[in-house]
Amino acid sequence: MTAESANELPEGYAGRALELLTQSRAKKGSRVQVTTKEGAEFTGLVIPRYESGSSEFLVLKLKSGYNVGIDVSKIQSMKVIEVPIIETPAESAHVEARPVTLSSQKKILLLSTGGTIASKVDYRTGAVKPAYSAAELYAAVPELGKIAEIRPEVIFSSFSENLGPEHWQKLSEAIIERSNKASTLDGVVIMLGTDTMAYVAAALSFALQGFRLPVVCVGSQRSSDRPSTDSALNIQGAARFAAYSKAQGVFVAMHKNESDHTIAIHSGVRVRKNHTSRRDAFQSIDAPLFAEVSEENISLNPDFPKIIDGTKASPDFSLKTKFDPRIALIKFHPGFEPSTLDYLVSEKGVLGIVMEGTGLGHVSKQTVNRAEQLVSKGIFVGMTSQCIWGHVDLHVYETGIDLLRAGVVPLGNMLAETALAKLSWALGNFPGRKLGELMTTNLAGEMTERLVL
Amino acid sequence: MTAESANELPEGYAGRALELLTQSRAKKGSRVQVTTKEGAEFTGLVIPRYESGSSEFLVLKLKSGYNVGIDVSKIQSMKVIEVPIIETPAESAHVEARPVTLSSQKKILLLSTGGTIASKVDYRTGAVKPAYSAAELYAAVPELGKIAEIRPEVIFSSFSENLGPEHWQKLSEAIIERSNKASTLDGVVIMLGTDTMAYVAAALSFALQGFRLPVVCVGSQRSSDRPSTDSALNIQGAARFAAYSKAQGVFVAMHKNESDHTIAIHSGVRVRKNHTSRRDAFQSIDAPLFAEVSEENISLNPDFPKIIDGTKASPDFSLKTKFDPRIALIKFHPGFEPSTLDYLVSEKGVLGIVMEGTGLGHVSKQTVNRAEQLVSKGIFVGMTSQCIWGHVDLHVYETGIDLLRAGVVPLGNMLAETALAKLSWALGNFPGRKLGELMTTNLAGEMTERLVL
Repeated sequence: MTAESANELPEGYAGRALELLTQSRAKKGSRVQVTTKEGAEFTGLVIPRYESGSSEFLVLKLKSGYNVGIDVSKIQSMKVIEVPIIETPAESAHVEARPVTLSSQKKILLLSTGGTIASKVDYRTGAVKPAYSAAELYAAVPELGKIAEIRPEVIFSSFSENLGPEHWQKLSEAIIERSNKASTLDGVVIMLGTDTMAYVAAALSFALQGFRLPVVCVGSQRSSDRPSTDSALNIQGAARFAAYSKAQGVFVAMHKNESDHTIAIHSGVRVRKNHTSRRDAFQSIDAPLFAEVSEENISLNPDFPKIIDGTKASPDFSLKTKFDPRIALIKFHPGFEPSTLDYLVSEKGVLGIVMEGTGLGHVSKQTVNRAEQLVSKGIFVGMTSQCIWGHVDLHVYETGIDLLRAGVVPLGNMLAETALAKLSWALGNFPGRKLGELMTTNLAGEMTERLVL
Repeated sequence: MTAESANELPEGYAGRALELLTQSRAKKGSRVQVTTKEGAEFTGLVIPRYESGSSEFLVLKLKSGYNVGIDVSKIQSMKVIEVPIIETPAESAHVEARPVTLSSQKKILLLSTGGTIASKVDYRTGAVKPAYSAAELYAAVPELGKIAEIRPEVIFSSFSENLGPEHWQKLSEAIIERSNKASTLDGVVIMLGTDTMAYVAAALSFALQGFRLPVVCVGSQRSSDRPSTDSALNIQGAARFAAYSKAQGVFVAMHKNESDHTIAIHSGVRVRKNHTSRRDAFQSIDAPLFAEVSEENISLNPDFPKIIDGTKASPDFSLKTKFDPRIALIKFHPGFEPSTLDYLVSEKGVLGIVMEGTGLGHVSKQTVNRAEQLVSKGIFVGMTSQCIWGHVDLHVYETGIDLLRAGVVPLGNMLAETALAKLSWALGNFPGRKLGELMTTNLAGEMTERLVL
């Protein structure tokens, strides 16, 4: 904490919470004791509120590492029990922010969009805060300097649940634009929040068809202020793969298992976040890993090319970076209200819908009827399965046959998340086109072969 | 095929398709050759259309086992190339339909609701058709007579994607009513379509709290006309567990792996269909199996009781069978339209929503705001994760804290499907009650312990 910041109020507060902080002279990083009217006592660091303007809640970081939000109107008293220690600013952060040239001569573009991995931890407040400048960003991951020359840039700073098609487009354009400027680049690493990383990786996979460099999405499940953090190993694995693999495509680099040893490199169109908190939360679905990175070794999976055999790379689809936001992903469920589809189309202008059906791709009879009406109006309706693994098949049961007759397009074993990103891309770059053929053409390995049963 | 049925037209046809069938004298089970105007040729059995009244499509069962729907307007010609063989009616089916008393003296109530497992295959037409009478039902699963005395009954005959809260209620009531009549029962087996079996099993788990017998849901992934059918082993495993285990609760019995050896017995609130077609599609999530059945052996898992430690069984919740259909399950995704929530509540009267957030349980800022407005109107909004595995945690990031402040209720590691069924049950039996406490009370083992990370 610098001398200037130690006298500042924590960011993001307003109204009654700000009054309380001012009255009790709590500054950035102060440790406070709060007693509620009900007699509960909390001791913790006052942390900034970055994405909320609520004036009713005070947020404390407890010793356990968890944050707690306390309704200001329920606070009886608050007192500061420890003030922040003032540190000398670290000059080194600014030095390290300049690209470092290594003997390897490899160069990586490092783009940050926010998320846990791209966060600079304030060790006094304990709050995880997205890095706002390239200097901060680079200082947060000093390990990278050993692997390649890094060109860091912050594209945006958001929790990934707030990223949508417009961000996918901005990010795709930034990757192409920056790499055109720097012709000697070896790869691109993108720091993302893990929450929607699979959606973003899929989106980039379609937008960056024909792109000459590996693009590696990386995130972390535990922020770097926790002893169990996975961020250093993930980012090193991602950087090594980006710098040395010469692979074309978009990938996701995350822990292969709970141990701190191997980074799994997943295909960007076949990966899913399958656990809320484990370090190895990401899994390739109906596909093997593309590669693994252990320390300095990159092992490409020789079986992977067979899996994506039949992918139709075409110059027609090359570097098409537009995304249309008029899309929806609908998980069908018992009691599903079919008119939800009409609402989205008629009231919200949605042009394409990805359904997550049950089993082989089924929905209720009434939902089939609604889908048929929408298809007849030119709306694209594609079918995936909420089972996650396996192919949809609309030829086995009557419901499936009715869906085919209704013009609903079965999407093989494309993941619903990937299908949503592909639909947004298809609508964005080929407006007015009938999308059935494009959506069922295997462009980037988004559909894998049916296993013999 | 009986003498009477061989002269019948296939069921479910009308309009132009019926005209075509009549003109070409195709009967139930006729093998026909169809040539389309585009010159394509199909040879197959004309099969009935059970759940669709379309007059535009003719459905043939091809030799490959797949069904194909052909637009009647595109048919150039059709001729019958083989007529059905007429068999003598099998008297034995009627005999077997009566309960058989065995030395074991175990008695099982066998209820059918439709789905692949409860289907009687017409070996001439090849169509999988839900069994309509107890006699047909019993004849379809003769293996059961070796395990226990079976009391079969068809409750309804539907593809499971058409089952909703009203069916959950009817089924719960039927189980209680039939078992009250037959005081010597040892267990209940319910034949269900696998598509929504996890939802139904969860629903029954809440409705049948305090029920004295094991209730075992069973289905099959391949219909019994396929060499790879799993139905016989599944139903035998289910029946054996129902007859001999003396376990209380609702379970799902399906193949443990692809080999035809062991049946996994899953907790009805922790199970999910995770593959569209594999025989071992069902998996217990964040929980071990409750038991396994191999041939005549039932192995209860000694660790299971620890997993559900803390479950609050209470007479207040005993045998409450109502379900409210005014529920919705919403999977959040990039580009999600937050007003969808308002539409469902304001226009469709939805009283409770289960969200599938990203990661630890996050949604976009705009969605948080909408949720807050709905909660302030008395609507229940609960949070689960689309990651499938792991707990939601709304204390780690600002988005989570904002959701808590908005009154959104984090549902631990409850599966979204289970949460939906629980919500319908809670609204049905405790109308007007604030549901936060009830939804987060572990009633049937629907939440398991957080693993130490």
